[in-house]
Amino acid sequence: MAHASDAHVIGLDFGSDSVRAVLFRADDGGEVARSVIAYPRWGRGDYCDAGRQQFRQHPLDHAESMREAVRGLVAAAPAAAAKVVGIGVDTTGSSPLPLGADGLPLAYDPAFRDDPDALCVLWKDHTALIEAEEINRLCHSGAITDYTRYVGGIYSSEWFWAKILHIHRSSPKVAAAVVSWVEMCDWIPALLCGVRDPAKIVRGRCAAGHKALWHPEWGGLPGREFYEKLDPLLTKLPYPLYEGPVAADQPAGKLSPEWAETFGLPAGIVVAVGAFDCHMGAVGAGLEPYELARVMGTSTCDILIAPPADVGSTLVAGICGQVPDSVLPGYIGFEAGQSSFGDVFAWFKQLLTWGDAGSERSAGLLKALGEAAAALPPGAGGEIALDWFNGRRTPDADQRLKAAIAGLHLGSTAPAIYRALIEATAYGTRAIVDRFVEEGIPVTRIVALGGIPQKSPLTVQICADVLDRPIGVVASEECCALGAAVFAATVSGCHQSAEAAKQAMKSGILTEYTPDPAAAAAYRELYARRGRLAAYAEADAHPVS
Amino acid sequence: MAHASDAHVIGLDFGSDSVRAVLFRADDGGEVARSVIAYPRWGRGDYCDAGRQQFRQHPLDHAESMREAVRGLVAAAPAAAAKVVGIGVDTTGSSPLPLGADGLPLAYDPAFRDDPDALCVLWKDHTALIEAEEINRLCHSGAITDYTRYVGGIYSSEWFWAKILHIHRSSPKVAAAVVSWVEMCDWIPALLCGVRDPAKIVRGRCAAGHKALWHPEWGGLPGREFYEKLDPLLTKLPYPLYEGPVAADQPAGKLSPEWAETFGLPAGIVVAVGAFDCHMGAVGAGLEPYELARVMGTSTCDILIAPPADVGSTLVAGICGQVPDSVLPGYIGFEAGQSSFGDVFAWFKQLLTWGDAGSERSAGLLKALGEAAAALPPGAGGEIALDWFNGRRTPDADQRLKAAIAGLHLGSTAPAIYRALIEATAYGTRAIVDRFVEEGIPVTRIVALGGIPQKSPLTVQICADVLDRPIGVVASEECCALGAAVFAATVSGCHQSAEAAKQAMKSGILTEYTPDPAAAAAYRELYARRGRLAAYAEADAHPVS
Repeated sequence: MAHASDAHVIGLDFGSDSVRAVLFRADDGGEVARSVIAYPRWGRGDYCDAGRQQFRQHPLDHAESMREAVRGLVAAAPAAAAKVVGIGVDTTGSSPLPLGADGLPLAYDPAFRDDPDALCVLWKDHTALIEAEEINRLCHSGAITDYTRYVGGIYSSEWFWAKILHIHRSSPKVAAAVVSWVEMCDWIPALLCGVRDPAKIVRGRCAAGHKALWHPEWGGLPGREFYEKLDPLLTKLPYPLYEGPVAADQPAGKLSPEWAETFGLPAGIVVAVGAFDCHMGAVGAGLEPYELARVMGTSTCDILIAPPADVGSTLVAGICGQVPDSVLPGYIGFEAGQSSFGDVFAWFKQLLTWGDAGSERSAGLLKALGEAAAALPPGAGGEIALDWFNGRRTPDADQRLKAAIAGLHLGSTAPAIYRALIEATAYGTRAIVDRFVEEGIPVTRIVALGGIPQKSPLTVQICADVLDRPIGVVASEECCALGAAVFAATVSGCHQSAEAAKQAMKSGILTEYTPDPAAAAAYRELYARRGRLAAYAEADAHPVS
Repeated sequence: MAHASDAHVIGLDFGSDSVRAVLFRADDGGEVARSVIAYPRWGRGDYCDAGRQQFRQHPLDHAESMREAVRGLVAAAPAAAAKVVGIGVDTTGSSPLPLGADGLPLAYDPAFRDDPDALCVLWKDHTALIEAEEINRLCHSGAITDYTRYVGGIYSSEWFWAKILHIHRSSPKVAAAVVSWVEMCDWIPALLCGVRDPAKIVRGRCAAGHKALWHPEWGGLPGREFYEKLDPLLTKLPYPLYEGPVAADQPAGKLSPEWAETFGLPAGIVVAVGAFDCHMGAVGAGLEPYELARVMGTSTCDILIAPPADVGSTLVAGICGQVPDSVLPGYIGFEAGQSSFGDVFAWFKQLLTWGDAGSERSAGLLKALGEAAAALPPGAGGEIALDWFNGRRTPDADQRLKAAIAGLHLGSTAPAIYRALIEATAYGTRAIVDRFVEEGIPVTRIVALGGIPQKSPLTVQICADVLDRPIGVVASEECCALGAAVFAATVSGCHQSAEAAKQAMKSGILTEYTPDPAAAAAYRELYARRGRLAAYAEADAHPVS
């Protein structure tokens, strides 16, 4: 097949466990090569304490793994790599990183090298529960502007300001040394472009609007009143922390000569502004207005875009963000999601392999469980579960919530509970879709991407049955990197706009799952039952004293 | 040590998984030898379907295993065996067995040999849920006497009449062939004494009063109205099914020459009337009035005795029986219990060894989990559970109830959940003790017996902490068989009364567990939280339609 141009672009997708460097043709988004490197410190469990829900990542994990991944990519396809014109970046988020006086991550300073409080506070870290609650109380107090208005009315412990305040409180040493904070999705482009001055780092609209309370209505980040009343500790940070976050169709800069040499890539490549993985995944999937793109990995992130004229001044309650241009320029981007998805299954595997980790049985366990669970009917043997193993992201963020498994009896087998856990993730999805619809945002179609949909047809089928809606699974295994590449192709001028790049480069659909009417009917009943379990768990997490 | 006499007695303890034949000195209850044989068909899972809560046992399992066990016992101590003067029997219950026209178990008939509906319906079989509910509705309707009055006001699917009606309904073939039903604890003595005519089988007060609605107030088993209004299917059975059940200090007959020869025992040995394992275990533990003897095995059974003068006409709500002479002649016997106890831990082991059964890891799993769980604080990492894996026996029997595990999060480890399950069993115990006290029956002391208390100090300590009461663990590993032997020694004239035999033969206390004040305080809070989970699970099992 002849191609319109010979230009290539790289998408760098920083997931929770690894970085994926993927080389695409800029004209049609065809994948040429990929290279994946897992984060070594993270893989060892360094700096984490699951019991306290503390999850930290060392920025060297990102930088070193990226170096190896891109080198591997270049080695795999040297001719195409020589024609790379743009790099796009997506990362997890909200995953803020503290920067020191030299503009480098504090963790690069030997004095902070192994200090968990000096590291990137990963999206799923929930140590900032109390701080999130304080932000909510303050914003709802009437004393200041309600800055939570465009993040569904509830600020989450998974987000930027709660995490920053928590670290400033728990580590005076870090608080004293930090000069700025940056989301990973903004830091990686800055790193690649050699931007050290925190004031010069280009910040993306995605992280700013969905996690840092940026909104045009109040002209940017929250006003001084917010930090002063929340905790004066925060007033030592620059005010505002940053201005003018831009959409990902804008350049963050050009690849520095040092990194170009390190990677073995041409100098002067344009690097696009970064965004969260799920947002870019939605773009890679070719998201159209009112479609819900579900990025199903460790957690899920659900993305929907709508024309501003349709949304008007509607405030969408309980959905964790409605931000102009955050996903695709010209649209309001909505973000929702489940705080644990793949993590639910990983938890169950860890439970069942206690004292048996790393065995042959362990390696094949989830596959075997899935086969056995597929033979069971909806609701299995009466087992029913909640997916709140890491709290609830949406609707109505609440990271104090815990999961539960009910309907247990002596005949409750591992496959039955596994099926209940899969169903729990589907019920969590239904709660999100229902909320969009209740709030006046129709959902016309669902597309699934990420690692799990292609590996686990059962998970997608159950979700289709629970939602009673068809679900299309996208063909690309690298849809987030593809979305990043769409913006790389935009900023490098390969396409006229991000919209045009999306249309030209987007992934096709691999499989369309259709709901089974009998299963859908069964799940309607079960969803009502799940509602009672959810009400119990909400009350358990917030006892009336 | 010199002994008052050379007489010996045998206690035959038919548990859920095996029969234990134990030889004791009749004077002081000293154990001379034991022999344990597991039921082979049961061990293979024959006739059972845990998913449907169907648990059936073939009477050949009992008869054949008993033959081997007693032979083994005689072989182990031939001199002492030659001096056996009495045999006592305890079994699980309510575990009714259908008898055919020849007075033999229907299952001995080749036409019924492998028919689960022709077998002993084991205590933990819950297939008769609907029938128990019908019995409750009928007894509470006002149309007939409320025959549930002395079984706590609620008839259970674990019990005699519910199971019989269920089998008569589900198997017309069995219903047509059956001529009577007998509890295992009454059948074994009849079998040993060669009594074939069902009308001549001596029935025990224990099973009759606690499970078959026998009470002196209405002169025996329920009147005709009960069967006619419940289901005319039952009117084909003899009316009354039996009369005059007696206490276990009465003889059921003499060992038949055939069995004497089979066993290698002297002919003419007196066989005492049988009773349930937990009742006899309480006697073996030397139960005094207002002590609660907890037999902690697959399930728990809690036994308490009180003088009739104290109890008067008090009706104890929600406790599954208050029966004159059922445990020890001269006292009102009360029975309570948890439908699953060891089964809860066995379930967890089975869950964690899915695909790994029979491995070395599997064999040591519960021990390793217990060690890790012991290092955790009360409430572990926030996990909390209910013990209703096989429904709830007491207080307020309800076999529709299911268990639940809440407070789950990504950091919830196998030891944390194991600890929550142990705590769940202790909370279930507290609910029973609280109910006794609320109903005016004080509980002065708790003694624990059965397999688990000696093997798992953690389980007993947590129970002491949750109850905030000391618990004494009895020394005898064969306390149920010892209780049976107490009655064997009584009927054979070695002692003047069952009370005297109990005092002379009872087991000592091995370990006294004292509650830890800090843990007890923590558990008071957690028990309130457990109450909310229990309320949810009750509502889940009985949705308002």
